[in-house]
Amino acid sequence: MLTLKEAEGLQIGPERDFYSATPEEIKKGYTTDIYFVSAQEILHHLNLKDTIVTAEIFPRGSGVMCGVPEVLNLLSSTPVEIWSLSEGEEFSPKEVVMRIKGPYSAFGLFETPILGILAHSSGWATAARECKVAAGEKIVLCFGARHVHPAVAPVMERSAIVGGVDGAACILGAKLAGKEPGGTIPHAAILIVGDTVIAAQVFQEVIPSHYSRIILVDTFKDEAEESLRVARALGTNLEGVRLDTPEERGGVTPGLVEEVRMRLDQAGFSQVKIVVSGGLNPARIQALKDKVDIFGVGSYISGRSPIDMTMDLKEIGGEKIAKRGRLPGIIPNPRLKQIK
Amino acid sequence: MLTLKEAEGLQIGPERDFYSATPEEIKKGYTTDIYFVSAQEILHHLNLKDTIVTAEIFPRGSGVMCGVPEVLNLLSSTPVEIWSLSEGEEFSPKEVVMRIKGPYSAFGLFETPILGILAHSSGWATAARECKVAAGEKIVLCFGARHVHPAVAPVMERSAIVGGVDGAACILGAKLAGKEPGGTIPHAAILIVGDTVIAAQVFQEVIPSHYSRIILVDTFKDEAEESLRVARALGTNLEGVRLDTPEERGGVTPGLVEEVRMRLDQAGFSQVKIVVSGGLNPARIQALKDKVDIFGVGSYISGRSPIDMTMDLKEIGGEKIAKRGRLPGIIPNPRLKQIK
Amino acid sequence: MLTLKEAEGLQIGPERDFYSATPEEIKKGYTTDIYFVSAQEILHHLNLKDTIVTAEIFPRGSGVMCGVPEVLNLLSSTPVEIWSLSEGEEFSPKEVVMRIKGPYSAFGLFETPILGILAHSSGWATAARECKVAAGEKIVLCFGARHVHPAVAPVMERSAIVGGVDGAACILGAKLAGKEPGGTIPHAAILIVGDTVIAAQVFQEVIPSHYSRIILVDTFKDEAEESLRVARALGTNLEGVRLDTPEERGGVTPGLVEEVRMRLDQAGFSQVKIVVSGGLNPARIQALKDKVDIFGVGSYISGRSPIDMTMDLKEIGGEKIAKRGRLPGIIPNPRLKQIK
Amino acid sequence: MLTLKEAEGLQIGPERDFYSATPEEIKKGYTTDIYFVSAQEILHHLNLKDTIVTAEIFPRGSGVMCGVPEVLNLLSSTPVEIWSLSEGEEFSPKEVVMRIKGPYSAFGLFETPILGILAHSSGWATAARECKVAAGEKIVLCFGARHVHPAVAPVMERSAIVGGVDGAACILGAKLAGKEPGGTIPHAAILIVGDTVIAAQVFQEVIPSHYSRIILVDTFKDEAEESLRVARALGTNLEGVRLDTPEERGGVTPGLVEEVRMRLDQAGFSQVKIVVSGGLNPARIQALKDKVDIFGVGSYISGRSPIDMTMDLKEIGGEKIAKRGRLPGIIPNPRLKQIK
Amino acid sequence: MLTLKEAEGLQIGPERDFYSATPEEIKKGYTTDIYFVSAQEILHHLNLKDTIVTAEIFPRGSGVMCGVPEVLNLLSSTPVEIWSLSEGEEFSPKEVVMRIKGPYSAFGLFETPILGILAHSSGWATAARECKVAAGEKIVLCFGARHVHPAVAPVMERSAIVGGVDGAACILGAKLAGKEPGGTIPHAAILIVGDTVIAAQVFQEVIPSHYSRIILVDTFKDEAEESLRVARALGTNLEGVRLDTPEERGGVTPGLVEEVRMRLDQAGFSQVKIVVSGGLNPARIQALKDKVDIFGVGSYISGRSPIDMTMDLKEIGGEKIAKRGRLPGIIPNPRLKQIK
Amino acid sequence: MLTLKEAEGLQIGPERDFYSATPEEIKKGYTTDIYFVSAQEILHHLNLKDTIVTAEIFPRGSGVMCGVPEVLNLLSSTPVEIWSLSEGEEFSPKEVVMRIKGPYSAFGLFETPILGILAHSSGWATAARECKVAAGEKIVLCFGARHVHPAVAPVMERSAIVGGVDGAACILGAKLAGKEPGGTIPHAAILIVGDTVIAAQVFQEVIPSHYSRIILVDTFKDEAEESLRVARALGTNLEGVRLDTPEERGGVTPGLVEEVRMRLDQAGFSQVKIVVSGGLNPARIQALKDKVDIFGVGSYISGRSPIDMTMDLKEIGGEKIAKRGRLPGIIPNPRLKQIK
Repeated sequence: MLTLKEAEGLQIGPERDFYSATPEEIKKGYTTDIYFVSAQEILHHLNLKDTIVTAEIFPRGSGVMCGVPEVLNLLSSTPVEIWSLSEGEEFSPKEVVMRIKGPYSAFGLFETPILGILAHSSGWATAARECKVAAGEKIVLCFGARHVHPAVAPVMERSAIVGGVDGAACILGAKLAGKEPGGTIPHAAILIVGDTVIAAQVFQEVIPSHYSRIILVDTFKDEAEESLRVARALGTNLEGVRLDTPEERGGVTPGLVEEVRMRLDQAGFSQVKIVVSGGLNPARIQALKDKVDIFGVGSYISGRSPIDMTMDLKEIGGEKIAKRGRLPGIIPNPRLKQIK
Repeated sequence: MLTLKEAEGLQIGPERDFYSATPEEIKKGYTTDIYFVSAQEILHHLNLKDTIVTAEIFPRGSGVMCGVPEVLNLLSSTPVEIWSLSEGEEFSPKEVVMRIKGPYSAFGLFETPILGILAHSSGWATAARECKVAAGEKIVLCFGARHVHPAVAPVMERSAIVGGVDGAACILGAKLAGKEPGGTIPHAAILIVGDTVIAAQVFQEVIPSHYSRIILVDTFKDEAEESLRVARALGTNLEGVRLDTPEERGGVTPGLVEEVRMRLDQAGFSQVKIVVSGGLNPARIQALKDKVDIFGVGSYISGRSPIDMTMDLKEIGGEKIAKRGRLPGIIPNPRLKQIK
Repeated sequence: MLTLKEAEGLQIGPERDFYSATPEEIKKGYTTDIYFVSAQEILHHLNLKDTIVTAEIFPRGSGVMCGVPEVLNLLSSTPVEIWSLSEGEEFSPKEVVMRIKGPYSAFGLFETPILGILAHSSGWATAARECKVAAGEKIVLCFGARHVHPAVAPVMERSAIVGGVDGAACILGAKLAGKEPGGTIPHAAILIVGDTVIAAQVFQEVIPSHYSRIILVDTFKDEAEESLRVARALGTNLEGVRLDTPEERGGVTPGLVEEVRMRLDQAGFSQVKIVVSGGLNPARIQALKDKVDIFGVGSYISGRSPIDMTMDLKEIGGEKIAKRGRLPGIIPNPRLKQIK
Repeated sequence: MLTLKEAEGLQIGPERDFYSATPEEIKKGYTTDIYFVSAQEILHHLNLKDTIVTAEIFPRGSGVMCGVPEVLNLLSSTPVEIWSLSEGEEFSPKEVVMRIKGPYSAFGLFETPILGILAHSSGWATAARECKVAAGEKIVLCFGARHVHPAVAPVMERSAIVGGVDGAACILGAKLAGKEPGGTIPHAAILIVGDTVIAAQVFQEVIPSHYSRIILVDTFKDEAEESLRVARALGTNLEGVRLDTPEERGGVTPGLVEEVRMRLDQAGFSQVKIVVSGGLNPARIQALKDKVDIFGVGSYISGRSPIDMTMDLKEIGGEKIAKRGRLPGIIPNPRLKQIK
Repeated sequence: MLTLKEAEGLQIGPERDFYSATPEEIKKGYTTDIYFVSAQEILHHLNLKDTIVTAEIFPRGSGVMCGVPEVLNLLSSTPVEIWSLSEGEEFSPKEVVMRIKGPYSAFGLFETPILGILAHSSGWATAARECKVAAGEKIVLCFGARHVHPAVAPVMERSAIVGGVDGAACILGAKLAGKEPGGTIPHAAILIVGDTVIAAQVFQEVIPSHYSRIILVDTFKDEAEESLRVARALGTNLEGVRLDTPEERGGVTPGLVEEVRMRLDQAGFSQVKIVVSGGLNPARIQALKDKVDIFGVGSYISGRSPIDMTMDLKEIGGEKIAKRGRLPGIIPNPRLKQIK
Repeated sequence: MLTLKEAEGLQIGPERDFYSATPEEIKKGYTTDIYFVSAQEILHHLNLKDTIVTAEIFPRGSGVMCGVPEVLNLLSSTPVEIWSLSEGEEFSPKEVVMRIKGPYSAFGLFETPILGILAHSSGWATAARECKVAAGEKIVLCFGARHVHPAVAPVMERSAIVGGVDGAACILGAKLAGKEPGGTIPHAAILIVGDTVIAAQVFQEVIPSHYSRIILVDTFKDEAEESLRVARALGTNLEGVRLDTPEERGGVTPGLVEEVRMRLDQAGFSQVKIVVSGGLNPARIQALKDKVDIFGVGSYISGRSPIDMTMDLKEIGGEKIAKRGRLPGIIPNPRLKQIK
């Protein structure tokens, strides 16, 4: 178990590229708040560190449970019992979502990362579920990796998929959720190529056929005009066009989507799907969903704040207890299942 | 450079404990959106992948620049030039905060992690600065590690210190910013010990003296009563009492702080500082700062959404260019300094 | 009948302690507006003062009728007929709540006190009813005597009981409504005694047993801790604990009530009732009523503004009449009952 | 001193006309909350009832101090010292407005009536001051007796005069403030007479000349037409016309006042003042004050809620003390003057 | 067809009294925007001016179709086909309300007046319908001619009748809608006569009996008093009294109407109708309609903004087409009927 | 003077194309409300029709005076004197803007059209001034003829120019204000031609050179792309491009204008002006004015409601008079000038 002396001796080497913690650092307790280390030493001095306690975790708001496997892995080698909601289940404010029982020394040090895993992951999963509910039958993809630190980009995208979205663009994020990453080609590549149609044709030629042919159509030309140009160039190979009109140009409006759809249909390209991205949220998804096939959602999911989680001791040595402001004793929740 | 084939072959092993990415995975491009990989292959086919381009990054909102060293490390082995605002400088909406010039193949793949690093870090640094500005001369500590995934808890706490706060509780976070982590002892330890005064006395006895003697006083008893009990037990060794009254009990009100301050003063303990935590934000800090010495801020900083960042190509092969909706050519910003 | 000369001659002696009017002064007309005295003299000069008229009283807003017995007593020796809603009945805006018929000289002088009695009493009764409706089955006591002039404190508390509350603390007010006054002991006495438990024990010893043993538990210590101390000291004699937490400490929150309830129950004191006071209104009563047994309401009742009442002549000598803006002739209201 | 036994024995006789308390009942403590009686018996049992204590009174809001002479009379025969703001001085929220020092048994019983006198009177005085400030140089009269119980109508009108208004209509209220009551004649009398001009002429004939000749002009006819009829009938004897247009007719608008003023002036009656009443408040007074000479304000003053006052013990036997949530020890206020 | 040369030569003579256009000027195209003239010359140069096109007209908001006969007359001598909603039918936002097919040269020049006729007329008709819906069974008359230029006063009043109101006061407007104009006599005439009753008696004597005897009763005296004077003077000849109380006197309130109605009824004049005018809108009509027989509405109808109409080409030479932002091809609307 | 008999005999012939009134009909009084005709007959019967009266006209709101020459022409052959504000002067609410003195028979009949001319014209002029103030140095053109009936389209456009805008597109409107009409070519013509560049080239070839070469660039292609195409085709002949992007495509945003400006400048077309139209109002003009050269405003001006005007008789036969609610006698206004 991490000691104050060991924590004090921790050196940050010059060869470190990123400020994020590695799995080893997390498991050693380096991402814990220092006072949990002090606490262990005080309890040790009083011969209390192995007291059997029961802790309960509850959220401040409602949401979708996410991060349970990581917590399980974190505590895998400790002699604790754990009861929890299942990954992806919904919870209410103040509902007990996880209960941990065992010697305090076995898990007390990890209060910080346990809560951090659940709070952050559940926030993302909750926002994702709101988008998926708004989209109904239509497909939602998570495009939010570009807003979060790369160390947690895969955590975020996996959480979004737990929340209900259908896929993600971040390679590692999609893989972790058992999906293949998906996407189009970026504006940058089209700008370098200099013409959307040429870029689309090379895409068709060089990219394996199991990657969807979905082409961005707002780089150089009017979206409706470019959609028809691309459709004529790729014919039935074209699976979709993506509208990502920037807000400087009014963003993607219902009128734009309706017009592109009709012009494609009138030209015989009814099979071409319409993909929309850029500043989407449940209200905008709702407003667009009749005419859109696929939504690419970014900052609504990736920018969601964590859902604050609190861990309280509720039993110590078999006695009901609680700090002031909390109810002593465990609060029964029949939805919890023992997972360890 | 990462290829589609390599990305497809990526396996997620059963031995993986966390969903976060390691530094190696980030550097290999695994946290990138898949379409940047496709883009490289298309450009390669057209013999365009080494085209010299200039990209500019701008934020959607105002804030505090953070994450520059990580971006520099990410691109350290590439032949690009970089101009940037300095770590900790403030930026305005749509101001160019970083400019990268070089062959597109050298950095195009990393658009996702570059933006993610800056967006996430700058969001946290910005929230931290707002707290520090509100607190003026008083001390602000970041206690937010418990709300974010442990892989980024140190990134978040370091960003908060870049933003201006004075310290942090997360071991690795504080170290990365060149500080020693600080804190008190948790409610859990006091509950197990069974009395705040005994816990405080053991703290005084076993914890090295360079750790501040700051004691939580809201676990069992009225905060004013407990403050006096602890002060009488530790005498001049006591550096501070921490009020963390839960919202179920009305939270920490200005009246509570004023009363604890006066009761301590009347009993001769003017040297004891008052530390406040729990749901703080700039408005509450402002309202409390006359009577409080140290603020522990959590979710206001850790829960701040990333500040969306956008990367645009503005020159290709020396020609001014931009996608629809953006202004072609670089936008001069005399505040940028070349860092590579 | 009071004359201008007599009114002019009225002397306010130095021996007067209070500015309130005595029953004798009210009956002599001294609390009437002076112009009703002038009016009598003008009508006398024209030989019109005994004209038979019908006056109707209506309120500006909705509410609960209160004050009818005082009006009846005021006019007891006059030759008028009176029809009225019953004490405690609800009225609508502009509904006729009382009709008086007789020679104008018999009651015209008393327009001021008649309206004042009804307006003031009905206002208080109305606020009280709102509290009782919010509390449903739970008990509501009126603790508002401290906000109003002592001359009307009993009027106010009796009106509150007419409105529906279950009791009051003001001795005379409760008596007037046929109740015994109830209460606990004040913060001042506990402060002088120096300990809540000692004060409670002496209460138990010296106060007759038909006074409820309800003890204030927020004077010195945390409410939950003090509740348990008092419960252990008085055992089954303890009928209730009163939470009156001041707003400087966040007031009485739902969380505090729930916690005190659970801690009492876990310690075997389920019979101890929870009494709450301090800034209560119907919305807060509603929010707390699941866990609270008795509510002590003060300023919501005592601070209610009077409900403006207007008296209009509608018939003079058998002719329908009205001033501009009002409808000539009586407005039938089948709910009125003749009471004189 | 009142005992529980005596309080229990208190009988409410059938000969009682009103529910208000007489001066004798107030001085005996009958309007006090019962728990102050219990408190005396508990303290007596512990031999603590004559402990020397210092109590401070503070208001919840800002306002105008009123009721000091009544408090002084209530405590005149007790051995206490009193410091107080002066009658009519303004106070801020939480400022100490009165301090009482002496044996607790001497005044503890009167906490209820002391606070009630100050809270109720100060509320009325505060509303009156707001009206007078709005009216500037113009005259404001209090016409609110008809909204409050007659027992406190004179308290209310005297408080209004303390607050700054120039006079009142209630006979006893005006007298208590050292003024003569003023007014016009009521609508009822004009309706019985049948013509405003005849009523005005008889007023001029039979009412002593020191009563202002101000005539109501909205009973039967258009106000402008009636003003001219009355002015022509009374000539230079007419001092003013009163506009009291009911809300059913749109109330008294600025346009109506301006028109009546101009029509009177054009007909040579510039000396006739314009008196306005009916639903006035500071905003409406402000809007009308250029054209109006006298304002008759009712419910804005009489309907003002009491300003909650709190009495706290701050010293007991020379020791600083306070209940939880309050600051121990007296709070110096240089504006207090010793009055007893 | 109008040419640029002819437009340039157009002279505005000094003998012109008004700036409005005559029917001849409208038919010649002088009220068209100049660029439609240029357009014809460009198309002529390219030999395209007789291209067969289909244009559709849609409104921006919902409303009542009005102006169809004028459009038909404007295009009567051209070889176009027209499909349209019927005069008075309701339309939804963006619904196609008219479709015109034929050689562009035949109607392109008239885009400006066609849209102007429909937009302006439909706006007025829509406001009128809202009033009539609010009034239910009661009569609504349009009195708005005084707010609009006399050249379109009859257009506005006819549109109001198309929208549903029952009549109008403007001579030409009423005639165009096949009605006889109606009204009372103006305030000016009553002021010159000097007494409302005399004016009413002369009206009865000299004006043919098919003009309704409706008399304005707010000129000199209180409306209730004047109503009774007029009713007594004209007896059963009196059909109604009109209340037009200016806002300076509070306008026409529900209380005033109710009082006048009751005073007339009590005096035996139940047959006299009550006509109300002055600042009416649907909400006020709704509030008054129980007691009022006839409403005279002015600025609510005459001040309604036009409903923007847009004309789009949707087919050219048989091909579906549209400008960017609109859907190519005609949008079927089964409610359209061919009218030419 | 028009009689009731003549009004009754008025026939609406089947040959009438429009519902608007001709100048002759206006001068004959056919657009007057019928009750002014009745009034003349009543006054004639009483031998009062030639009474010398003074009438004053005042507006309900503030604005810009417009329509004075039409009123002068309407009354040119009558023996009245007229004082008025000048065309284009600003007025305040209730300020007297025009005074007419003479025999009532000479102008009473024309109250309806006099007020209508001033109300309607002043409304439009006022809206136009707001736009011009917002635009500062930049040019504003009125494009609103398409929203109003063609009979008043020239009245509206002339009023807009009186209000301050720089020009108009309606042929007759511009001419009446002494300007030449201006504009571009409509979407319809470009759609028929099939390409914006060809349309622009033919414009350049066939339209006289004093018509500005301003080309609509949003019909087929992205506005930025089309602007460059047109600029390259017309070279220095091109005076401006017009952006009229429909709301379905997000309307004209500041970002679009800035981008088109920069792309034109970078391509060497700095002389090309940017013209914006579509849903403009003062706030949007303000937001765009840095980058835009010319604003085409439609419905903000054409859709402005008339400013209600009221005419009151203030003197009759030399006596001051007014109806109830108004001030008798003329109200001096030194800004009025005698114009007849």
